[in-house]
Formats: sequence, structure tokens, C-alpha cells
Amino acid sequence: MRQQHYLVPTLRDVPADAEVASHQLMLRAGLIRQLASGLYTYLPLAQRVLKKIQDIIREEMNKAGAQELLMPALHPAEIWQETGRWDVYGPELMRLSDRHERQFALGPTHEEVVTGLLRDEVKSYKRLPMTVYQIQTKYRDERRPRFGVLRAREFIMKDAYSFDTSREGLDESYRKMYDAYQAIFSRCQLNFRAVEADAGAIGGTGTHEFMVLSDIGEDTIAYCDTCNYAANIEKAEVNQQEYEQVQGSGLPMEKVDTPQAKTIEQLAAMLNVSPSQIIKAVALAVDGQVVVALVRGDFELNEVKVKNLLDADVVELLDEERIRTELGSEPGFIGPVGLDGCKVIADYSIKGMTDALAGANEKDKHVVHVSVDRDFSVECYADLRQISEGDACPRCAGTIHFAKGIEVGHVFKLGTKYSEAMGATFLDENGKEQPMIMGCYGIGVTRTLAAVIEQHHDEHGIIWPRALAPFDIHLIAVNMKDDAQRELAEQLYTQLREAGYEVLYDDRQERAGVKFKDADLIGIPLRITVGKKAGEGIVESKLRKNGETQELKAEQLIEQIPSLLEQA
Amino acid sequence: MRQQHYLVPTLRDVPADAEVASHQLMLRAGLIRQLASGLYTYLPLAQRVLKKIQDIIREEMNKAGAQELLMPALHPAEIWQETGRWDVYGPELMRLSDRHERQFALGPTHEEVVTGLLRDEVKSYKRLPMTVYQIQTKYRDERRPRFGVLRAREFIMKDAYSFDTSREGLDESYRKMYDAYQAIFSRCQLNFRAVEADAGAIGGTGTHEFMVLSDIGEDTIAYCDTCNYAANIEKAEVNQQEYEQVQGSGLPMEKVDTPQAKTIEQLAAMLNVSPSQIIKAVALAVDGQVVVALVRGDFELNEVKVKNLLDADVVELLDEERIRTELGSEPGFIGPVGLDGCKVIADYSIKGMTDALAGANEKDKHVVHVSVDRDFSVECYADLRQISEGDACPRCAGTIHFAKGIEVGHVFKLGTKYSEAMGATFLDENGKEQPMIMGCYGIGVTRTLAAVIEQHHDEHGIIWPRALAPFDIHLIAVNMKDDAQRELAEQLYTQLREAGYEVLYDDRQERAGVKFKDADLIGIPLRITVGKKAGEGIVESKLRKNGETQELKAEQLIEQIPSLLEQA
Repeated sequence: MRQQHYLVPTLRDVPADAEVASHQLMLRAGLIRQLASGLYTYLPLAQRVLKKIQDIIREEMNKAGAQELLMPALHPAEIWQETGRWDVYGPELMRLSDRHERQFALGPTHEEVVTGLLRDEVKSYKRLPMTVYQIQTKYRDERRPRFGVLRAREFIMKDAYSFDTSREGLDESYRKMYDAYQAIFSRCQLNFRAVEADAGAIGGTGTHEFMVLSDIGEDTIAYCDTCNYAANIEKAEVNQQEYEQVQGSGLPMEKVDTPQAKTIEQLAAMLNVSPSQIIKAVALAVDGQVVVALVRGDFELNEVKVKNLLDADVVELLDEERIRTELGSEPGFIGPVGLDGCKVIADYSIKGMTDALAGANEKDKHVVHVSVDRDFSVECYADLRQISEGDACPRCAGTIHFAKGIEVGHVFKLGTKYSEAMGATFLDENGKEQPMIMGCYGIGVTRTLAAVIEQHHDEHGIIWPRALAPFDIHLIAVNMKDDAQRELAEQLYTQLREAGYEVLYDDRQERAGVKFKDADLIGIPLRITVGKKAGEGIVESKLRKNGETQELKAEQLIEQIPSLLEQA
Repeated sequence: MRQQHYLVPTLRDVPADAEVASHQLMLRAGLIRQLASGLYTYLPLAQRVLKKIQDIIREEMNKAGAQELLMPALHPAEIWQETGRWDVYGPELMRLSDRHERQFALGPTHEEVVTGLLRDEVKSYKRLPMTVYQIQTKYRDERRPRFGVLRAREFIMKDAYSFDTSREGLDESYRKMYDAYQAIFSRCQLNFRAVEADAGAIGGTGTHEFMVLSDIGEDTIAYCDTCNYAANIEKAEVNQQEYEQVQGSGLPMEKVDTPQAKTIEQLAAMLNVSPSQIIKAVALAVDGQVVVALVRGDFELNEVKVKNLLDADVVELLDEERIRTELGSEPGFIGPVGLDGCKVIADYSIKGMTDALAGANEKDKHVVHVSVDRDFSVECYADLRQISEGDACPRCAGTIHFAKGIEVGHVFKLGTKYSEAMGATFLDENGKEQPMIMGCYGIGVTRTLAAVIEQHHDEHGIIWPRALAPFDIHLIAVNMKDDAQRELAEQLYTQLREAGYEVLYDDRQERAGVKFKDADLIGIPLRITVGKKAGEGIVESKLRKNGETQELKAEQLIEQIPSLLEQA
């Protein structure tokens, strides 16, 4: 492609409103332009990369036995009403009416449409399992679109749905998608982790998020420095059940004044104790019932674990009114001593604590020298705290670290949630009607593009991984007015394309500095520069990755390209 | 792909609401399912064909130098307001509001978005010409969606836009797209014509429609049986300027009673004259001004030609009120004799008529023995009539025939309509600001899929052209319970795929009749049947196109496939 007439509007300056590297570089390298908040045009360079990502996804999905189809983006309201999501989805679901005042949504996801399709078209266990997928534009009316295409309102997704006759079948379908995702993100040269995420009521290993490690990520991942364990911090297990506790003084419990000391830090400073000697008590409404959960002061309570322990639907902090009237306590001064008629659960870290400090359930008061079992009792102990950096890995002897991640993929065992709501059943071998057992699997295609740039750039611009680069080679004629340079460049342009390479040819009449800066910004792996030595038949190669340059004889260029690209 | 677990829900019966062959077959062969009126899911077989059509389009567009990009489907209202189309587009434009009550449209076409993009990103003549394209889902809220995906509300289009600095540049960009379209539709094995259509104010050869010949088409094409001339009947030129007229009797004009004779047919029957002896007078409002256009009774007036002749914006039939008050005539009895103060124009067929019959501008009266020039005068003669079947070709000595066509593509010289409205200018070589000169070029991708089926089917089902077939080979194991058959089929399935062929393998436990009927319906070019002679290592090939069967040794199958596919 000749750059002179190619729509790659590079920018010198960093756009003011772009906060993150990928957003800045996508604007600067001429990959995207914003049409309106959260709506982007993908310019030719970006479209070439998107196509390569999509080709990789298709190959791996097909290899895993998934079938590509294409469902409408416009969904009639009725189908969302069948699952009740029309009412609960909220303002992120973009809605519109047609000329006959019938209501539609722009699909953010396709569980309803695909479940309706399989319900109507597949009747027998003989036809299952089946996994279908599509690569399609999706819509989500984000309250605050940000980071360019990372959080856009119109974006491309690959979404897949599996239909099985048994839990074991679902496990197998899930594993195939999991493996395909590993292959896809590896081929995209991403540094990522498949992270266990909370599966809610489904439990088990029912959901993984594929997280690209990046400081701009909005999720925190706990991962092991030794094995490949990784989990969303909401989900990460703490398998420590025994904690070393201080030797007790045997002193009786005593009430002390702690005016204004509402946080663990304030309290620890005021009374000069370690946070690990404080009992943190969190009052919760668990499906409406009052529950007090205890965790050691140096740890954080994980409400998802409370929810799963008690098999609840909703866990919320108890409001101040109920803390006073039902718990008979005081916000900021809640403690386990003297509570009556409510369930008290505790993290393992509480077990056997003595000489501890706790809220006195009175304004500006705490109690000291508290001993578990002597001064209060706990209904049950469990893993209720959030994992901390430095904790032992729950799988091996390694140590847990935290990282931020960008979610690029998600695999999820849906079970029968949608098939039951929509009556998507099959007849089993005994002629009995059973709901189909479903999984769903998503990849953010446009988000993956941004994540690749987030991980592959330097201060000069993008550094495309070979498999995704919009072109293999950036051919630059330094001075198009110089006959020798222009003629050699034109000749190489023809040769390289005839040899099957994708070549961007900078044939612009721009200064050399501009051309080189643009080349670094655009980030094509291998640059071939035709400059002053063109008359002697000498050109220069440069690898974008490491800046390595080499002088080459133009007539030997074609035969050297494969090894140059191998290093690129 | 194993058919047992492949989503191809074939139907025995013709669906009641499907009127045309392609719609019926797409439903019956399991290619599509309707989600709501005008909204379709493309099932895996259809998606495979769509992908092949898209690949062909991409190849030819890229070869023609066009650059692929991807613009949003959601358009902010403001950009449509810039060209005024927000107000004039009507109910076919689907509109919605986001969570902040900002208005958007779902794009039916992208002139506004692309013109805004080029306006912002391209400033100099040096960067032009440029042609960009995208393959994307479009929306049009059809009042009456019909014929399945032929007239849907959500559909896939390839739309391209060219930007040039001169008329000659536009001609060249247009020619490239025209040639690419010829290549694309030829590769899709369509019997089509590139038809000259009316370009309105642009004139010249400014627009062509690519029409697939089909009785279900909604447009009429005039085409030559000798050369490749073809035109929309609205546009087709009649280059006959001399007509043979009857020898005049010399009798004076005379008024006759013709009660209730309002049509040419009624009049000809009542007075026993040939329609070619009648002067048809049509009263028009041409940009508001009264004009009477004359054409011989055996021809039809072409209002588009009147519009172009008079360089008008709007040509309408004059309403009855104005016929009476301004023309001083009577609806149904208009004639050229005695008209005062209005422009009278005539088709060449009127020139030199004598002894003609015409309206008397009085209720239930006509005049006979009318002679042109003697009894009335004509301001100018021109080609104003619609072409007729049997007319001479305007390009060669051939004869014109009519056909119906399905429009699958359209190339159009836009000129500066959008660039002027939106200020998309460039600086020319003298530093002067000029509006970009645009062309736009569309292909209905999903419509092309249906058009292919419309032209390639028989009473048993679809007959895919090789280049678009969802699979190369349909491998059928007649009886999966028979070990010899199953084992040989499995072995061939592996071999054929390893040899690089796309194979649909009917491994279902269905009766042979069902399998064969489905195979004919689905229409894969080459069928390989593993049946009773499997034990002897013998299989049967069958070409879908002509039903030709052949027994083959299984062990020689792989080497015979290329020649079989060549015939398929």
C-alpha cells in the first residue's frame, strides 16, 4: 500500500483527552478517530489488525468444533422479557422503537436470541452438544466511556454459547473454549492470566476471566509467583486455617474510651496496638437477615465469600438505622461482645484470639483484653477474608502477588438459567424433557486490539507483534525526489509484494525525520530504508523491536527477508 | 463438519409465508431463521457462504486500491443534520436516544460519517484520490420487509466512497469500482447486467445499477440482445428521431363525442383507430410550472427524461384543479390544440403526425384529423418516451428486450453534494480550497446471497456455484449402523479434510431418503455416498448440478476429487 494515498493520519502531539497509552497511540498512529463519545471509526491500519485478530479467533474456534453463525444486533423486546432482563438490565441496554412503535434493544449479549434459536431448532439429545459463535458488533450504553476503545459503546465481540445434555458435557465444552482462549491470546502475544472468577450460585471452577496484565486494568488479580494459579481477588481462596496468635495475658475484658476512632488505623494508632490484635466486625444484611462477620484487623472481609458460605442471593452492608435498632450497636463501634439474636461468623484468622481489641457497640467505646470463646462465641469459622499480597498460594508453596488486569475474555458456565427461563429443552434417551445446559464465552475483539498495544509499545510508538502487524514491512524511500532512491524503492516495492509480503510503502514527499518518526509510531516490525546509498544498491533494515539496523545489498534483500522477519 | 451436531435445521415443507424461491430455500435448507419481521439469524451454512462472498469482495476491492476501514453503525444526529438528511430521511431511518437523551441514528448508509472523516483528516490534493470501504451491518426500517433477506431491516452491505480532486479523477475511481463489481458478481456466478440508471442532476454515465436477472426483481431493465447495452427503463435512451407517419388525408380538424373514453385503449376501441394515431398529452408541473408533454399513444411518457431535458428538480403530474383552472382543460381529455400560455414539448414520435386523434380539452370530446404544425405547435422535440420491447438498441443494430432485475450493487457519482454541505475541502496545487469530488458504491452482501440462490436452484433445492458453496463435498454414510459403511466413511472424512477439502459429513442416523433429500436441498456441488458397496471399497460420486453419478474405488477417491470438482 502506498502511504501517500493511505488514510493514516498520524499526530505529533499526545491528544489531551487520552489518558492511557493505547488510547494515545491509537489516535497518534492513525488507527482510530472518535465519531462521538464511545463511538470510534477504525481506520485502515486498525482494520487490518482487527482482521488478523478475527482470523485467529475463527481458526481457534473452528478447531475447537464451534460453528460460526450471525444473529441480529436488533433484538425484539419480547425475547428479553422472556428472561426478565428487559426490566433489570438498566440504562446500559440501548432501546429503540421501530416505525410501528414496537420496542427493540441493541444487543449487548445474545443469550436470549441464541437460547430461543436452539429451543426452536434442536429437540433431541442426539443433536447435542453444540457450540455456536459469532463475531459481531455489540452495544452497551456506558455511563462513562473511557480509555478509547477499551470501554466503548459500540464494540466488536466474539460471543459463543454451548449447549449440552449433562454437567460433564458442559465441563468438556467449557474446557475446549478455555483451551481455545489460551491459544488465541497466546497467538496475540499477550501476557495474560486465566483468572478464576466468582461463579456465584454455580460454584466450582465455573468461570474464568482472561486478564491481560496491565497497570491500567480495572480489576485486581491475585497470582502465584510459582505455579499458574491466578484468581480475581474476590474469588481467591485463602487456605490458611491456623493462625499464630499472641500468648494471652489472661486479663479480664475492659471497656475503654476511643473517641472518634472509627477506623482500624485510627484505633491502632490511638491505643498503640497492631491491627492484627483488632477484631473487625462487619454488620451485614444477608438476604435481609442480620449477620455479623468477623475478620482480623489486618485483613479485609470478602463479602462474596460470605454470600457463597451462606448460599445467599444478596449480601449488603447493614444500614445505620438497622445497626442501631436491630443490632443494638453503633456504626463504627460494632464488636462481637454482647450481641444478641444475630448470627456471628468469623474468618479463620479470628480463631483463638486473646487480648484482642473490639468495638463495644457503644459510641466512642471499645473493649480490650477480649478473648474468643471466653467473651463471645462464633457460630462458624470459614475462609471469609480477601487474599493479601504475600499470602501463601492456595495451590502450592509459592507466594501471592497482586496485579491489575484488563479483561479481554470470559468463559462462564451458565447452567440452566436461560434454558429454563425460555423453555429450551431436549428429549433425553428416555424421552424425558430436560433443560439444555449452557455455557457462554466472550472475547472483546476491539478491546484485545487495545490491550495488545498497551503491552507492546515504547516511548516512540507501537511495536506490533508479528502475527498481528498490519503490514510485514515498512518500506521507506527517504527522498522521493532523488531518482536513484525512488527507482530502487519502487522496484523493491514490486518485488516484495510479488514475494507475498504485506508492504506499506512510504512514498510521501516528506522530510526523512517525519517519515522515521511515523514509522516508529506505526510500529511495523521490519523497516527497509532506501536512502543515500541507493545508488550503490545498498539499503538498511531496522527492527522496530530492538532498533537493530543492518546494511544490505538490495539485490539480496528478498532472500534475507525471512530471517529478518524471524528476528522482528 | 459432522452433520449430527451441526446446526442445519432442514424443513420438509415450504414455509407458508415465503413467496419466492430463495426465501423458501433459505428456510428449508437451514440457512436462516427469522427473529422478527425483517430480522434474520444466518445459520452456519449461510455464514460460510457469506464469508466467501465477503472474501471475494475484499479481494477485488483491495485489488482496485480501495482501503478497508470500519465506521460506527450508531451515528449522532448532528452529523445527519449537517446535510439536512436527519429531517428528510423519513421513517426508514431508525432513531434512538442514549442515556443522556442525545439522539442517534442506526446508519443505513455512511456518506455523512465518511465525509466528516475525510474533511477532518485529509487537507491536501497530494493525499487524493482515496477510496475507502467497509463491510458492515446496515439498518433500514422498511415499511414492508419481504422476500426474506432480499428486503430486510438489518442487512450486510459493502459500502465504498471515493474522494477525488477532479471530475476526471472521479471518472477513473468510478471505473475502477465498476470493474471490481463486474469481477465480484462474475465470481459469484451471477447472471447480471450493469444497467445505466438515472443519475439525476449529475447526468452522463454517472450511475449504474448491477442487476441480477430474475422474475422476482422489482425493477425493469431494458437490454440489448446483441451488444451489452442495458439500462433501467427510466433511463434507457431511444435514439430514434424519425418515425414513419401515415399519409395525411388533408381533412380539416373536427370535434367528436367520446363519452367516458379516458384511456388510449378505450379511445382506440371506440373510434377504431390504432393507438399510434393518437396524441397522448400529459400535463405536468415542472418545478411548479405547467408543461404539456406529448407522446404517441402507443408509447409511454418518461418523466425522468422531461426532468433532465428541462433541468428540473421536481416533475409531478398536474393536479385536476390546476388542469381546469390554469390549463383550461379537462382531466382525461387533454390535447395540444388550443392550449394557451403553457410550454408544449413532444417526443420525436409526434413529429409530422397528420390525421391524428387528440383530446379536445373538453369533457367527453376529442378532435380528429389533427395535424402537427397546422393545428398546434410544439416548442421542442426530444427523446421523451420510455423505451419499448422490440425497439432498436441505442448502441447497435440489436433489439431491446425487457427483464426484471434484483439490484445487488450500485455505483454512483455523487459529485460535491456531501462535501459542499459538510465543508470537506482540500487545498489544490495553487493553495485554493476546493470541495472533494465524491463517488459512492454499494453492494448488498446478504442480498447477493439470496440472489445467488434465486439463480441457482431446481425443484429439489439449492445448487451452489463452486466458488460460494459452503462445503466442497457432502460425504454421506447411508447407514451409520453398518460397520463397513461407517468405518469407510470415517476414514474418507479424515482423508478428505487432510487433503484440504471442506467436507460436510452426514453421520446422522437417519434414513437414506432423508439424507439424500437433505443433500439435494443443501446443494453442495459434489456428493460422495458410502453405501452398500462399502465392503468392496466402492463409493458413489454425484454432481448436484446435473445429477451425474459414478462408482469409484474408495482408495482412488482422493486423486479423482480435483477432476470431479472441476465438473461440479
